[in-house]
Amino acid sequence: MLKIAIDAMGGDNAPEAIVNGVEQARDEMPDVEFQLYGPVDQLKALIKNDLQIKFIEADEVIEMAEEPVKAMRTKKNSSLVMAAEAVKAGDADAFFSAGNTGAVLATAIFIVGRIKGVDRPALMSVMPALKGPHPVFVMMDVGANAENKPAHLYQYGILGSFYASEVLGFETPRVGLLNNGGEPDKGDPLHKEAHQLLQHGSDAGNLNFVGNVESRDLLQGPADVVVSDGFSGNATLKAIEGTAKSVLSVVKHTIVDGNLQAKLGGLLLKPSLTKAAERLDYSEYGGAVVIGVKAPVVKTHGSSSAYEVAQTLKQIQKISDADLTNKVEAYVKTHKDELSSKSEKK
Amino acid sequence: MLKIAIDAMGGDNAPEAIVNGVEQARDEMPDVEFQLYGPVDQLKALIKNDLQIKFIEADEVIEMAEEPVKAMRTKKNSSLVMAAEAVKAGDADAFFSAGNTGAVLATAIFIVGRIKGVDRPALMSVMPALKGPHPVFVMMDVGANAENKPAHLYQYGILGSFYASEVLGFETPRVGLLNNGGEPDKGDPLHKEAHQLLQHGSDAGNLNFVGNVESRDLLQGPADVVVSDGFSGNATLKAIEGTAKSVLSVVKHTIVDGNLQAKLGGLLLKPSLTKAAERLDYSEYGGAVVIGVKAPVVKTHGSSSAYEVAQTLKQIQKISDADLTNKVEAYVKTHKDELSSKSEKK
Repeated sequence: MLKIAIDAMGGDNAPEAIVNGVEQARDEMPDVEFQLYGPVDQLKALIKNDLQIKFIEADEVIEMAEEPVKAMRTKKNSSLVMAAEAVKAGDADAFFSAGNTGAVLATAIFIVGRIKGVDRPALMSVMPALKGPHPVFVMMDVGANAENKPAHLYQYGILGSFYASEVLGFETPRVGLLNNGGEPDKGDPLHKEAHQLLQHGSDAGNLNFVGNVESRDLLQGPADVVVSDGFSGNATLKAIEGTAKSVLSVVKHTIVDGNLQAKLGGLLLKPSLTKAAERLDYSEYGGAVVIGVKAPVVKTHGSSSAYEVAQTLKQIQKISDADLTNKVEAYVKTHKDELSSKSEKK
Repeated sequence: MLKIAIDAMGGDNAPEAIVNGVEQARDEMPDVEFQLYGPVDQLKALIKNDLQIKFIEADEVIEMAEEPVKAMRTKKNSSLVMAAEAVKAGDADAFFSAGNTGAVLATAIFIVGRIKGVDRPALMSVMPALKGPHPVFVMMDVGANAENKPAHLYQYGILGSFYASEVLGFETPRVGLLNNGGEPDKGDPLHKEAHQLLQHGSDAGNLNFVGNVESRDLLQGPADVVVSDGFSGNATLKAIEGTAKSVLSVVKHTIVDGNLQAKLGGLLLKPSLTKAAERLDYSEYGGAVVIGVKAPVVKTHGSSSAYEVAQTLKQIQKISDADLTNKVEAYVKTHKDELSSKSEKK
């Protein structure tokens, strides 16, 4: 039975959204134990039916704005740290939080622990592809690391391909490198070398590299796995999210603040615009995954609703069903030379 | 009299859009000489009235996809290189192109020449601010450099402030550093050090630093001058442009491909949606400026229309009227210690 350790106090809408999300998910996930870490009395008061749900007392909370590593070290009794510790101790198989991203990353890497041979675990986001063969693509690293080396980026190509094929079911996923131009010699030394490593890996049959991709085209789905360093990946992800939100808000305001004609038009268009917004919404694909650690660790955004929490829990089941962690561990072990020689070179 | 050297063959719509744009601008810019570099016969055939227009034969064209530095070195008779050479020779005061961005940058830096004391000239874009005190903000570097040092970023804060105050007329422009978080200690070493330099410069009264800004918030106008390294600035700019385009296209398609109700709604909403798209359109503010070179060099995007060409020519006049180049040169000279000591440190 899959046991998911849940930080019931993480996120802007916690604990209500978390508890409600767990109950929504539970009704579709009969073989899962949901472990809720938080103030038990408060959580119990919110629950309708405690079937499959276990409560574990955690009386501290890591706030969204706290300094991650310090918070992890000082708040041992926080719902976030205790949930991560449960995975480490083998009491749970996976870890979910909607809380402080930095703290989730820190606990994932330092408590759950990185897979030996993965130099730098990364944060991976699932994003919508408006064109191309699949409805989504994955991008990593979107912010676990402020600095990366070429070998890390090569590993992200391998790890992202694993996720795309094993969890999303994409055949021979197309791997692209986020760079500032299409030609192979574009970019700073980091991206030039990463390009070469990915190309060699592709030539050797380890992944399917399709070359550089530019941030301008990402939503058009030029690749199933977009490899990026954590700094520019983070900037790109946030620019896409922020711009989509801003543009939709401008469209909404022209309707709401418009004249009668605009309002009537908006009323007629509403069902279609809702559908448009849904195409850009990828919450049904779940949260951001910490890739390269010893168990599934998934973080959904702080403002997640109960629905998004439930979708993320289903995503964790998929990752678990696909046996992703063990497969990655096995791959890294048997391909040690391929991965580590590149790593030492840098 | 201001003399603008114009690459008449640069861009997807050249030479028609360039020639028409020049004629549009000319009618509002009585004191300017427009020097058109290109195949004279072809250009003359397109012109309605050659008032204030001078034709200079240039029989080669640098294509959009050519390798920039190689193209600059081998195509000495191209419209792009000859226009840049005219500025160097003193036959023109400013240089305009809608052509190959890399080639414009290369000619700006190697032919027009960088201002002594500016370590790394940068490409600066003007972008729309949906909120805040001003309708636009500037961002630099958006791609002239693949790699930057902290001192470059400090210089961009100074140079961008100059543009915002002298050309756009913003009082004490707010300078923000594009980074992966709001706190001063965020980012890789480059951004941490740049943050410190900008803060010290602000404390000393050289600029008005408002701290880190994130790509998610840029369109909401948190700063008038966004300082970025060329790599992540390029990724962010392209992500914003590409996402805005993708989202508007999704909205458009839900109308066009929708049922009768959606089509009717779209018809009623059309004037308002056009206004919304205009809020996001910043072509009236002109093109991207190469900052830190010895003359105004402005590049508008390859698909520019005649209107956009005309707006960019007006922008060049504003830069010239503001005497930006001389002011930057004078500032750099008198603040040599401030700028160069930082530069040497790195």
